[in-house]
This record gives sequence, structure tokens and C-alpha cells, in this order.
Amino acid sequence: MLHHKVTPESPIGIFDSGIGGLTVVKAIRAALPSERLIYFGDTARVPYGPKSQITIRKYAADDTAILMRYQPKLIIVACNTVSALALDVVEKSCSGIPVIGVLKAGAELAVQVTGNNRIGVIGTQATVCSNAYAREINLLNEESAVVSKACPLFVPLAEEGFIDHPATKLIAGEYLAEIRKHDIDTLVLGCTHYPILKRVIADIVGPGIRIIDSAEAVALKTKELLTESALLNAAATPSVPHLLVSDLPQKFSQLYQLFMGSELPDVELVEV
Amino acid sequence: MLHHKVTPESPIGIFDSGIGGLTVVKAIRAALPSERLIYFGDTARVPYGPKSQITIRKYAADDTAILMRYQPKLIIVACNTVSALALDVVEKSCSGIPVIGVLKAGAELAVQVTGNNRIGVIGTQATVCSNAYAREINLLNEESAVVSKACPLFVPLAEEGFIDHPATKLIAGEYLAEIRKHDIDTLVLGCTHYPILKRVIADIVGPGIRIIDSAEAVALKTKELLTESALLNAAATPSVPHLLVSDLPQKFSQLYQLFMGSELPDVELVEV
Repeated sequence: MLHHKVTPESPIGIFDSGIGGLTVVKAIRAALPSERLIYFGDTARVPYGPKSQITIRKYAADDTAILMRYQPKLIIVACNTVSALALDVVEKSCSGIPVIGVLKAGAELAVQVTGNNRIGVIGTQATVCSNAYAREINLLNEESAVVSKACPLFVPLAEEGFIDHPATKLIAGEYLAEIRKHDIDTLVLGCTHYPILKRVIADIVGPGIRIIDSAEAVALKTKELLTESALLNAAATPSVPHLLVSDLPQKFSQLYQLFMGSELPDVELVEV
Repeated sequence: MLHHKVTPESPIGIFDSGIGGLTVVKAIRAALPSERLIYFGDTARVPYGPKSQITIRKYAADDTAILMRYQPKLIIVACNTVSALALDVVEKSCSGIPVIGVLKAGAELAVQVTGNNRIGVIGTQATVCSNAYAREINLLNEESAVVSKACPLFVPLAEEGFIDHPATKLIAGEYLAEIRKHDIDTLVLGCTHYPILKRVIADIVGPGIRIIDSAEAVALKTKELLTESALLNAAATPSVPHLLVSDLPQKFSQLYQLFMGSELPDVELVEV
């Protein structure tokens, strides 16, 4: 049962535990420049990854409620941790609006492109421990073998801007060494920060492994869903994302620049 | 004006944004084994470092209120970020109980031991940007020169257990290169996590630089203060710390082991 009227002009609501989900905003803007995007980053309570499931589920409900104020036509969960542990909470909190989770979108694309049904997944401790990618991939194709590895240092390395740093190469080499032994042909970047380190990761795994950027997977799926339901925004002028955060951290504009490649627009502070 | 009765048997309350303050618990247990310690780690809202001052000050008041329920004789702010940006909030929220901040304790010890009045300070982005160490050190000795450097990757490296890792050495080498150029003879570890990486840091700066572990500085000051006010606990049996956390993160017992070198005791979950 839908509690608000949805039109092609309604915005798309996107949330993440922090600023990582901006990689999803960037991918959607590239694919669907006319869509109005409302992004909420829970920068006061980031990171969700190391927190307990109870806390993550509470936060997921809060984040959805904030976006629902804008009467969106679609909610995108850009946070892998919430997609893994609390997607049902989001679905229950949004009165029938469709929900796209970054995890399912990435899993679907991985199953589509793999040739040998051997898929690697890297992400935060919580995402990997939840085993949600393996579960999702096996729902789509029970013959797929999934190898996962938590890479907890990738987020701080990305945020420190250590993109080409030798320490990043060392750490990535170590994190990925084991996963490479399993003869995978596809590797899912199961954390929204990881696209920032895509080149270093690609160099280490080599050209034989196809890298799935879940942000791009979400953008593809969003386009599909809006087309099917005749909800594509036909506006001729590109829209600037509306940015909401729960805290204004230091280095915020630097990080925005790192993720979006453009200057920080006006930001609205919301209380959680 | 004191709102509760304080005796030598009253506990010492200690709080931190997360588990880093356990290095302070460890140092106090070593110096004062008979004291009853109540530790609150705000594991649901960690880290404080990258957050704004408004948020950090709100959290400082919450954390103090939680400890005040136990009617402590002393409150120790083991969090450098709170010591730097919100010590006055703690002092206002604790009805006349004395407060020791890790920052001031470290600054005092640094000023005591330096020979050439050139002191280095490393810490989180927020601690370094606040300039609080330099201010505190210059209050004590206006001729001291202070050089600071934020080392944002040290906390995740410590928590990942990358103690002797070549990547840690590379990153530490880079972070500390600049600070070493300034002819300092004393280096303050201005973040409670950093003692975990003390050996790597000491190897890089070399034997000519004295390293100040603020946890040890706090323990010294606590002993002094309790002795002066005749509040030392004379109990013959050592007390086990009472542990409160706002969330039970994954890997918590592993991290406790890393910080304390002993098994995780019972933990009480409190809501923030």
C-alpha cells in the first residue's frame, strides 16, 4: 500500500552509512542525468560495517524514514552492510515503494558475466561475515562457487587518498592473494568505497578477472526498473543531487571531490 | 558542588569513543591494581575523530552521564578527541568530581621530559586540527615548539593487527618523515590506539626521540591525584574492570585481546 503519489518527476532516494554511496550517485547521474536524486549519508554514525546487526537494523529504519519525507519513487540502498543485514527493514519502512539494494544488483551482474561460475567478493568485515553475497548469488545460480574476503583497510586507504600508494598495493596484494588462488573469473567490489581503488585492484588480479562495480550494477538496474514502470524522468535539464548528511565531518569537501570529481554543492544537515 | 559521596572505595570512571581507551585501563591497572574501574566505550558511535565539534560535545555529555550513574571519585577522559574539543563539557556534567584528560596528562609529561623544548605530536585529524596539544604545551611552557601530524591510518592498521606489517612501516615512515625534520626530542602518541604501534613508531624515529605514551601519563597523574586527596583504594585484592559498551561490534573479543592481552570479561550493553 503506497502512502504517497509517485510520478516520473518524483525523486530517487539513495542512502548510505556515509559518503561511500556517492559512487552510486555518480553512476546513476551518468546513466540517468535527468533524475532528481536525494542522497542521505549518515556521516554521524558511519561506519556501519563493524557494528552489530541490531544497531544496523535500527539505523536502516531511521535512514529510510529520512528519505521518505521526500516522497521518492524508488529507494536505493547504496550501503552494502544495510543491503546485507537489513534490506527487509527498508522494505517494511517504505510503504510499497520499490527498493534496490546494491548487494543484489552486484550479485545479479556477477552471475550474468561469469563464465566459469567462480565468483570472488570483497567487502567490509560485516558484509563478508553476513555471507549475504554468497546467499544471493546461490539463489540466482546454485552452481556458483563464491569466495569472499574482508578488506577492512580499503576504506581508510581510499579516504586517505592513498590510491596509487605502495602501501595500498602491498595491502591489496595480501588481501587478494588468497582469493586469486581459487580460479575466479569475476570479482565483485562489495563496498561502495572500493571503486576508488579499482585500478590497484585490477592491476593485482590481472586482466583475466572481470571486476564488477556494484555502483554501475545499481545504475543499470535503476534504469531497467524505471523504464518498465514508466517512471523515467523526461526532464531535459540535468538535476543536481540534493545532499543530506547527519554530520559535517572534517575533510568532507575533499572527500566529496575524491568520490564525485566535482566541487561540493550545498549540503543539508539532518538530525538522526 | 558534589552530588554524591566520594570514598576511597568509589570507582574511577573512564570513557573513550571506542576501545582505544583500554590502553589507559591497562596502564592504570598496572599502576593502581586495587582501584575499581568502570570503563565506557561508545562503540556504537566510534570514531569521534572525523566528526564535527557539535557532535563530539553532545557525545561527551552523554558519556559522562553514563559514568556518573556509578558515582565515581574521578573521571578520566581517555579519548583524545573529547579531551581536545569537549573537556569543559565533561567538567560541567560531573558535579565537581575531578576530571583527568589524556591530552593534558600527555602534554605535561612531554614538557617535563623534553630537553630541547621541541615536541612532536601525532593523532587523529580532529585532534591535530584542534591544535589542542600545542595550546596545552604552550600554556605549560611558552618556549616549547610543537610540530603535529595527523596519522589517520594508524587506528585501522592497529585494529587490523598489522603491528609488524611492511605496509605499516611504509605508512609510518611517510607520516613521520616530516615531523623528524624538525629536530624534536620528544614525540607524544596523541591517540589511545597508537601505543599498539609503539615499536614500529620507535624504530622509525630512532633512539634519540623519547616517546610519550599518554596512557602511562594518565596513570601517573591518577596516582598523584588520588594520593593527594587521600582517595587511594586500600583494597588488598585487585579488581576486574567493569566494561560498558554502546554496541557489541564484531571482532570485539579479538580487539580486547589485542589491547589488554587478556580474555574479554563480561560486558554490559548500554543505550546511547
